[in-house]
Amino acid sequence: MDRDAKSEMTSEIVQAEGHLIDSGNLQAILTSVVEHPAEYEILRLDVGRTNESPSRLSLKLLAPSDESLQALLAKLSVFGCYVEGAPHAIVRAADMDGAAPDDFYSTTNHRTSVWLDGRWVTAADQRMDAVLIVEDGRVTCRKLRDIRKGDFVVCGMQGVRVQPDLQSRDKPTFGFMSNEVSSERRVETAVARVADMMRRARNDGGRIAFVAGPVVVHTGGAEYFCELVRLGYVQVLLSGNALAVHDIEVALSGTSLGIDLATGSPVEHGHRNHMRAINAVRRAGGIGPAVTSGLLTRGIMHACHMHGVRYILAGSIRDDGPLPETMMDLIAAQNAYADALEAVDVVVMLSSMLHSIGVGNMIPSWVKVICVDINPAVVTKLADRGSTQTVGVVTDVGLFLHQLATALKG
Amino acid sequence: MDRDAKSEMTSEIVQAEGHLIDSGNLQAILTSVVEHPAEYEILRLDVGRTNESPSRLSLKLLAPSDESLQALLAKLSVFGCYVEGAPHAIVRAADMDGAAPDDFYSTTNHRTSVWLDGRWVTAADQRMDAVLIVEDGRVTCRKLRDIRKGDFVVCGMQGVRVQPDLQSRDKPTFGFMSNEVSSERRVETAVARVADMMRRARNDGGRIAFVAGPVVVHTGGAEYFCELVRLGYVQVLLSGNALAVHDIEVALSGTSLGIDLATGSPVEHGHRNHMRAINAVRRAGGIGPAVTSGLLTRGIMHACHMHGVRYILAGSIRDDGPLPETMMDLIAAQNAYADALEAVDVVVMLSSMLHSIGVGNMIPSWVKVICVDINPAVVTKLADRGSTQTVGVVTDVGLFLHQLATALKG
Amino acid sequence: MDRDAKSEMTSEIVQAEGHLIDSGNLQAILTSVVEHPAEYEILRLDVGRTNESPSRLSLKLLAPSDESLQALLAKLSVFGCYVEGAPHAIVRAADMDGAAPDDFYSTTNHRTSVWLDGRWVTAADQRMDAVLIVEDGRVTCRKLRDIRKGDFVVCGMQGVRVQPDLQSRDKPTFGFMSNEVSSERRVETAVARVADMMRRARNDGGRIAFVAGPVVVHTGGAEYFCELVRLGYVQVLLSGNALAVHDIEVALSGTSLGIDLATGSPVEHGHRNHMRAINAVRRAGGIGPAVTSGLLTRGIMHACHMHGVRYILAGSIRDDGPLPETMMDLIAAQNAYADALEAVDVVVMLSSMLHSIGVGNMIPSWVKVICVDINPAVVTKLADRGSTQTVGVVTDVGLFLHQLATALKG
Amino acid sequence: MDRDAKSEMTSEIVQAEGHLIDSGNLQAILTSVVEHPAEYEILRLDVGRTNESPSRLSLKLLAPSDESLQALLAKLSVFGCYVEGAPHAIVRAADMDGAAPDDFYSTTNHRTSVWLDGRWVTAADQRMDAVLIVEDGRVTCRKLRDIRKGDFVVCGMQGVRVQPDLQSRDKPTFGFMSNEVSSERRVETAVARVADMMRRARNDGGRIAFVAGPVVVHTGGAEYFCELVRLGYVQVLLSGNALAVHDIEVALSGTSLGIDLATGSPVEHGHRNHMRAINAVRRAGGIGPAVTSGLLTRGIMHACHMHGVRYILAGSIRDDGPLPETMMDLIAAQNAYADALEAVDVVVMLSSMLHSIGVGNMIPSWVKVICVDINPAVVTKLADRGSTQTVGVVTDVGLFLHQLATALKG
Repeated sequence: MDRDAKSEMTSEIVQAEGHLIDSGNLQAILTSVVEHPAEYEILRLDVGRTNESPSRLSLKLLAPSDESLQALLAKLSVFGCYVEGAPHAIVRAADMDGAAPDDFYSTTNHRTSVWLDGRWVTAADQRMDAVLIVEDGRVTCRKLRDIRKGDFVVCGMQGVRVQPDLQSRDKPTFGFMSNEVSSERRVETAVARVADMMRRARNDGGRIAFVAGPVVVHTGGAEYFCELVRLGYVQVLLSGNALAVHDIEVALSGTSLGIDLATGSPVEHGHRNHMRAINAVRRAGGIGPAVTSGLLTRGIMHACHMHGVRYILAGSIRDDGPLPETMMDLIAAQNAYADALEAVDVVVMLSSMLHSIGVGNMIPSWVKVICVDINPAVVTKLADRGSTQTVGVVTDVGLFLHQLATALKG
Repeated sequence: MDRDAKSEMTSEIVQAEGHLIDSGNLQAILTSVVEHPAEYEILRLDVGRTNESPSRLSLKLLAPSDESLQALLAKLSVFGCYVEGAPHAIVRAADMDGAAPDDFYSTTNHRTSVWLDGRWVTAADQRMDAVLIVEDGRVTCRKLRDIRKGDFVVCGMQGVRVQPDLQSRDKPTFGFMSNEVSSERRVETAVARVADMMRRARNDGGRIAFVAGPVVVHTGGAEYFCELVRLGYVQVLLSGNALAVHDIEVALSGTSLGIDLATGSPVEHGHRNHMRAINAVRRAGGIGPAVTSGLLTRGIMHACHMHGVRYILAGSIRDDGPLPETMMDLIAAQNAYADALEAVDVVVMLSSMLHSIGVGNMIPSWVKVICVDINPAVVTKLADRGSTQTVGVVTDVGLFLHQLATALKG
Repeated sequence: MDRDAKSEMTSEIVQAEGHLIDSGNLQAILTSVVEHPAEYEILRLDVGRTNESPSRLSLKLLAPSDESLQALLAKLSVFGCYVEGAPHAIVRAADMDGAAPDDFYSTTNHRTSVWLDGRWVTAADQRMDAVLIVEDGRVTCRKLRDIRKGDFVVCGMQGVRVQPDLQSRDKPTFGFMSNEVSSERRVETAVARVADMMRRARNDGGRIAFVAGPVVVHTGGAEYFCELVRLGYVQVLLSGNALAVHDIEVALSGTSLGIDLATGSPVEHGHRNHMRAINAVRRAGGIGPAVTSGLLTRGIMHACHMHGVRYILAGSIRDDGPLPETMMDLIAAQNAYADALEAVDVVVMLSSMLHSIGVGNMIPSWVKVICVDINPAVVTKLADRGSTQTVGVVTDVGLFLHQLATALKG
Repeated sequence: MDRDAKSEMTSEIVQAEGHLIDSGNLQAILTSVVEHPAEYEILRLDVGRTNESPSRLSLKLLAPSDESLQALLAKLSVFGCYVEGAPHAIVRAADMDGAAPDDFYSTTNHRTSVWLDGRWVTAADQRMDAVLIVEDGRVTCRKLRDIRKGDFVVCGMQGVRVQPDLQSRDKPTFGFMSNEVSSERRVETAVARVADMMRRARNDGGRIAFVAGPVVVHTGGAEYFCELVRLGYVQVLLSGNALAVHDIEVALSGTSLGIDLATGSPVEHGHRNHMRAINAVRRAGGIGPAVTSGLLTRGIMHACHMHGVRYILAGSIRDDGPLPETMMDLIAAQNAYADALEAVDVVVMLSSMLHSIGVGNMIPSWVKVICVDINPAVVTKLADRGSTQTVGVVTDVGLFLHQLATALKG
């Protein structure tokens, strides 16, 4: 870029603090600028001399237009950059229900603060893809559809600050196997680490949520999942109709999708058995009544009911039945999921891309996530949505649960 | 099995007709008996002397118990076996809303007839996992939840007959590449066949439905899909919130999940652009109003709106927003899907396992299905649900649509 | 096809016997004729009245040209059809070393007999893609490159008979999970069946060969594989350089591809450790000397050496080193593999597509094959090469071996 | 770590220069130290103020033992760290043929220099997993097996320096889609970039090598590959027996693995056609003679022969035949591959994991690599071996080649 071009560029100075280097944020910031494309000048970079002390960066950005500069600021904010001087955030009143002003600030899943009346106010209910609502000096994340006309909505990037590096401090402990998603890894090592993390979480009074698909049942993992429930390692179960249906199918007829779990052979047309299971529970009035009446005496749903695990079944377009507990109103189901995920410390995702993406949208970046699937593409996809927080394990889910239950019992 | 055991076995005689051999049904019947385990004696097998004439089978079954025999009959019924003499079907009144008697007959997706008052009555609204309701001499498939107390429900296997081989007559024409699901195939050959089938369907006045996931947009297939719409090859589009959101994101900002489709580079934090797209449509009052007002001027949803394609967006737990048109009440969404699928002749499933399974549950076995996905496991899974009717193509969806649009234009 | 066309067709009568229906051969024969395209007329079909008795088929084929008819006969021969009257096979002398006459008969992996001097002579060394050499009244399968000028080579289809259905009699016992390749299955059930089959094979004095890739080591399966060796369930190990290198890397440094198997963390640049392992073995003079000298004290190669398991390492273009035992001359390696596979009853293929395809080319169709891989496409591909004989298990190889060793110990 | 522990630590000071931040090396260095575990103190970090100027780092390392420290130095050297003062490299004479001293320096694929007699000497024939041989003041990479007794081998880390960041300067141009491997991308964008890169490489007189598996033929890519040959974009073709066999099978019989490429239907038992192709070429005396004699008139091998493309076919354990040109001596094949790859600027890997890994082992990190496969796990695996240099495209190979040929023609 020649001098003339440069002289016509607009500029802005941004700041960032924290573990800029080992979090990868410094690299991400500088690469983002170059690829934008824009230019940078490092005004100051104080690197913590040891791995315990934070770093500080002051960076001058030059972009060809104000529009380009604003887009760059938006991009950099997810890596913790904020504008020096922190002018008061721009807050506009919503002009209608269920939608924000065009230039609303859309959240990431990282801890977010807003500069209001001379102080940084940290947002509550942090989640991604939300708007920031200012009310009585407090800031809250809210979904577009929950905006009401007159709500004060944070707009633009000004006065908004993101702290993306909280998780990375834990990396040496948590970040095993995080370099790449691969099926060519020793799962027993991963299981030992996950078991250790779950044990520490429970010792600290933390809560663990599982997201699980029907593959848990098909691969024979149900009995081991029940063991985890009995051992107290499951506080919340988020799933859909299918997991419950196939779990109950096994409990009532010994088959999963019509395959006998003991022999591996098909015993009858599969849909028949799963439809009989649905019908039986509908006749009983639901899973709870089916346990109470003695119809349902084993399996995951039985264990959850008996041990007070909060379970939420969200409906989907593919659902048969559904079971009475399955929530076919998805607004209600999303609210129930989000409510159950409050104050959860660890989420274990087992072979359910649909529900896992749903949950990933709802949780802040400091919740630890373990994602288990036999398909590496699924693990990669889920990990990409929150790279620093997710550990992926590519393996057979049934055998993983067997190993995990053994590790947590021992 | 020794003689004594045999003498204590119960027996039944079943019949089957049609293209028993080239459909694979004869093999399936005999193998099912052996694996049950039970025994068979072939009383009569008239094989059509040429490939144009049907075959007839009369088979004696021997099973160790009546329960085992009934289970075997259930299994065999999907291959077209029915009990000789066809005693009147057993019909019971439902004793409650939303559930059937325990021994209800659960349907397959094959054409099903019930022996009532001395004649075979073919069920309407054929779909799998339904109950058969008898009303005024007619038989209809109905979902469990739609049963009302007092409805007459067909129970057991007696007097029920399934005709699974209708599709197979078409096999030599339709069944290209049907031997195995593999990515090691020439897609251009498959495209030519699919294009030919679509052309014939349209020439005969047939209707074509597409089931499509957001990967259609991410892989750059949207413009080619629009071409199919303009050429009149899309009567119905069944999808979810994500396809529409990312399509509109491209239309408004040129990115899909934040990736610039023209350059392949990320242009800004992706969630921002897709959230802005959702917000813009919510502000406009929906996709229709967004087209009318001139906000939305291109892309799949625009093309569908302009060309009168019926589109239905079913909600899911992972949805952001959602768009006003997205149906978050899944009972309503399932009903809308089923309604739109009536009188459809061909379904093309593009990279959406969730919606494709949903659709697969709703359509009878004589609707032709083409399933395209880059993941062979998805194609296998969808094809397994209706093997004779589904052709799987393992390939890149964007490039597939490019080829298909070119083939249909030429 | 009109009458005139028909009258100009050439025809031939073929026979087939055996379990035509439950093996699927009858369906395959008739479908092949229709898809060829040609026509058939069933002259006689005696179906075994029970599942224990064989069937007999006499079929008239009509094809538009003699060339088409010969191609059809070739296709049908793999399903057991042979030409009535069995004229003496056509045998020609090879006119050069290393190649056959143009119309040579290329073998399948099914038992093959040749009509010579009024009797059926069964070929020795049955394998696929070989030529049939007649010498002193005996028939042997031989590779193209091993033909010598003057060898008598069977040409055309005449007087050649294939018996493809031997395996299928075992199907009800062996064929668990054979319907489809899927990761959505309970692996513990498959393990129990495989363990049972291995136990029976050993009780009958049978030999078991393993084909294994380095993933066995990376996934932590090595210690369980050693257990199988100690328990006497491994007679032959067929692999490449990489398995041995990474096994020895673990034995010497505790890492596999540089990943510490105990902690799952990278401990140093991986290539360094595996190169050090190679160098150490090269300095010792080979795996055997490394065991004898006390350098190598654990791992798969150590166990094989100590328990007299015959192991053959075939080289590949990707090999580093290689280890002294790795055979970089592939003609010699193929011969060594084939030699080791003689009289083997069961082959277990563990995560090595390359070596597994090589082995699959060498073994006859009556050797039982279990194929384990976490990638369903690999399992499908291997099973497609010999569908009736192969059982596929889609799972984590390390955990599979853990389960298998536990099952065989118990 | 308390003060006493610290005082017992050994320390060393290392340097690094270059684009430390945007290459990710600074982050990798600091993270490696922490995860080792060891400690660091940043003595100096001069960050280039703009994205055009290099950075300089001076770092004090503290490790609990000398052994730990040496392991850490080894790990850091791949990120460009070298020991201050650069003492003369340690060089030892090899004590035997075919193996190095135990502590030999094993190379990476990055440009490597050795401090000899007061100057940095850059190694020739850079490749990974080699030893550094010093001869007449020059340094050369050599494979273990090519070491001769008395050769001078560089040992330990001292006086060795790696420059890993050469590639990253190109990143903004080259690094499209490099963030993640995903099938959910627009391939047409990737094709445009690859075409552009190939065009620039050829304009600069660069050489392009293709590594290709038989899937290129099965997916119908052969005609488009031939187009690339005709257009002058293929200087070297590295493959195995199978690509050539199936290409010639198509040329002679129109089928690939027995599947008719024009109709997608199997035309005869596939192994027959491919065996006939092999036999025909063996009779002709090889691919070259088969072209000259007029037997082979089309396809990839024909095009390579006619346009002077250097092709090398490396044998494997799965090979049938083989073709006369297939090198079954893998030492010779590896040497031929390496020789052909000299002075190559771009390598395009098409659906051949085996040969691609082989090639990846041979090329230095500044050769640009494009890796195309429909299986994301393959692309991830190949990209992991040289992350900065490889661009992965997950798509159908046949359609990719169609698009690429169209883009390069236009």
